[in-house]
Amino acid sequence: MFFKLIHTDKSTKARAGLIQTDHGTIETPIFMPVGTQATVKTLSPRDLDEIQTQIILSNTYHLFLRPGQDLIEEFGGLHRFMSWNKPILTDSGGYQVFSLQELRKLDENGVHFQSHLDGSRHTFTPKSVFETQRKLGSDIMMVLDECAPYPADEAYVDKSNDLTLRWAEIARNLYETTQPLYGHRQWLFGIVQGGTFLPIREKSARALIEMDFPGYAIGGLAVGEPQETMMEMTDFCTDLLPESKPRYLMGVGKPHDILEAIERGVDMFDCVIPTRNARNGTVFTFKGKMVLKAARFKNDRQPIDSDCRCYTCTNFSRGYLRHLYNADEILGLHLATLHNVHFYLQLVKEARNAILNNRYAEWKTKIISSITKDILN
Amino acid sequence: MFFKLIHTDKSTKARAGLIQTDHGTIETPIFMPVGTQATVKTLSPRDLDEIQTQIILSNTYHLFLRPGQDLIEEFGGLHRFMSWNKPILTDSGGYQVFSLQELRKLDENGVHFQSHLDGSRHTFTPKSVFETQRKLGSDIMMVLDECAPYPADEAYVDKSNDLTLRWAEIARNLYETTQPLYGHRQWLFGIVQGGTFLPIREKSARALIEMDFPGYAIGGLAVGEPQETMMEMTDFCTDLLPESKPRYLMGVGKPHDILEAIERGVDMFDCVIPTRNARNGTVFTFKGKMVLKAARFKNDRQPIDSDCRCYTCTNFSRGYLRHLYNADEILGLHLATLHNVHFYLQLVKEARNAILNNRYAEWKTKIISSITKDILN
Repeated sequence: MFFKLIHTDKSTKARAGLIQTDHGTIETPIFMPVGTQATVKTLSPRDLDEIQTQIILSNTYHLFLRPGQDLIEEFGGLHRFMSWNKPILTDSGGYQVFSLQELRKLDENGVHFQSHLDGSRHTFTPKSVFETQRKLGSDIMMVLDECAPYPADEAYVDKSNDLTLRWAEIARNLYETTQPLYGHRQWLFGIVQGGTFLPIREKSARALIEMDFPGYAIGGLAVGEPQETMMEMTDFCTDLLPESKPRYLMGVGKPHDILEAIERGVDMFDCVIPTRNARNGTVFTFKGKMVLKAARFKNDRQPIDSDCRCYTCTNFSRGYLRHLYNADEILGLHLATLHNVHFYLQLVKEARNAILNNRYAEWKTKIISSITKDILN
Repeated sequence: MFFKLIHTDKSTKARAGLIQTDHGTIETPIFMPVGTQATVKTLSPRDLDEIQTQIILSNTYHLFLRPGQDLIEEFGGLHRFMSWNKPILTDSGGYQVFSLQELRKLDENGVHFQSHLDGSRHTFTPKSVFETQRKLGSDIMMVLDECAPYPADEAYVDKSNDLTLRWAEIARNLYETTQPLYGHRQWLFGIVQGGTFLPIREKSARALIEMDFPGYAIGGLAVGEPQETMMEMTDFCTDLLPESKPRYLMGVGKPHDILEAIERGVDMFDCVIPTRNARNGTVFTFKGKMVLKAARFKNDRQPIDSDCRCYTCTNFSRGYLRHLYNADEILGLHLATLHNVHFYLQLVKEARNAILNNRYAEWKTKIISSITKDILN
């Protein structure tokens, strides 16, 4: 069985489950660190292992352009190329391509775009991105979708979603009629679109459920809409989606967004925030967040969080980390990233424990009030 | 005993010894990775431990400017600040200051300079840099010296060396009359100067030997002179220096320079080459060196060196590393640095074994012919 629902919290929709892949079992809810270019920035596979990373996400668009799908196939797939033997989810590349704005053009067949690297022209179709993901050999593949911008009018979103559904059908058929290349199984997720319009969300979800995907993503959120809207849409979608399939809220998010979405029945998350913010000097803890570069931490001999067990917190002070940022030393980026990803993984792990103990809502309220604070000393 | 000479090779001057500090014993000959700003670039202390780093070097000039000696004192010294509990050698800052050229002015008392960071004005004196190194708490401290440029005329070098000797005397007296700040012992090295002039080298060595330092550095080399000249000066100095004291050839060097100097009786080395070249994409192996960025390695599934046991070589291919450089990913800099420093440490370790087995010259000739090759496939 691909997904096993272990337990649902007594008073919320929050779920604990297991996703079983040929590269290992993932305990949900889970956060997937983002390894855009076949590396989670500044972290080695053994670093990821150490902080108990269970699955990473990598970006088809970026890998397609560099180093290229054929090169990765030559190396025996993405796992071998990057020396990561746990699960990998790849997105379809659609989100990145649609972000190109002026550099892309959409039609029924797919999306034509120019590389952000060298302006070279390429086309993604539902079939091509599926085949690229076969070559990458990710454990979980995503269908090509159009992620409508926010705000967008209802007619546009409806038409866009219809196209996404036609593309999903193509990918679903290919999934049925093709085989993985490297001897391990791959699973395909459909993506619920529909912007902020409940009727379109419903149409999208029902059509995808009909196609019977191994899992479902909720897409088109975290693109600028208010958090309340994001949660309303998420809540609506998880009510429609089957209990027996994993649910993945794409591109989310801040720690408190993740906790709110878990409460609404989401199982999987990815976001660049822990890695990107670490490189900018912002770190998260269960006691709040802090900007390590701030002058106030110059003489601070405390670790980022004295209760944190990560390598960074058990060995280095805020003052030393601030010095590393100040001196443009790469070690600072590495140590802060290690801490932040560790924090995200601990957060979902504790969430899972709270679910298993039927006290999710209470735990969530307490944790959100503390993680959203600003640590000043 | 601070230094213990274990064995001298039967047919060369190459020596195996032990340097005993309160942070651990160092097996010589040894290479010291450079941690300019309280971090060996891209490597954490546990990375350094893993590749069996026995001592690192850090730069007084850089630490003096940022984060400042008083801050490091507040943190309990450099070991604690950077979480490195093995030996540290600090230079005097002199070399960096004299490299500032237009921004510095020398007189009898010391050297006045402007920070390369913000133009602020400072003075280093023999006393001030000694006191700074007390605050840093390095296991091995260096006296302030003037490193004469190459080429320089004999009169200038002679005068410069006389000043260096007067400064050495001041430092030697302070060493006798002051105490370490953190409960562990610190040792002070004199620096033999004299440019490429044997009579001045001799005067310098004899005067410093008279002052009875715990160890001696050979300075003013690796500043542009031919390798042959560097080795001639080194050979001359080690003939003069006492057998019972460790000898450190400052700023050297390329792998084959180190092996030549070991043959001439040098025990300690430091250089930015393994770390800096790694960041530029050049890696060293016992089979030769290679530029990882080269297009020829695009599809190369071999590790940098299939016989190397470092984390990089046991997990990653040249093709993957090339991709990381190409994509400006920090992980590439880290993995190549880890490999290069590991290589330098293995090189001196094997040199030590060859000395202990009385086959240094033979081993050196064989190794130099292979490490200086260019690996093309």
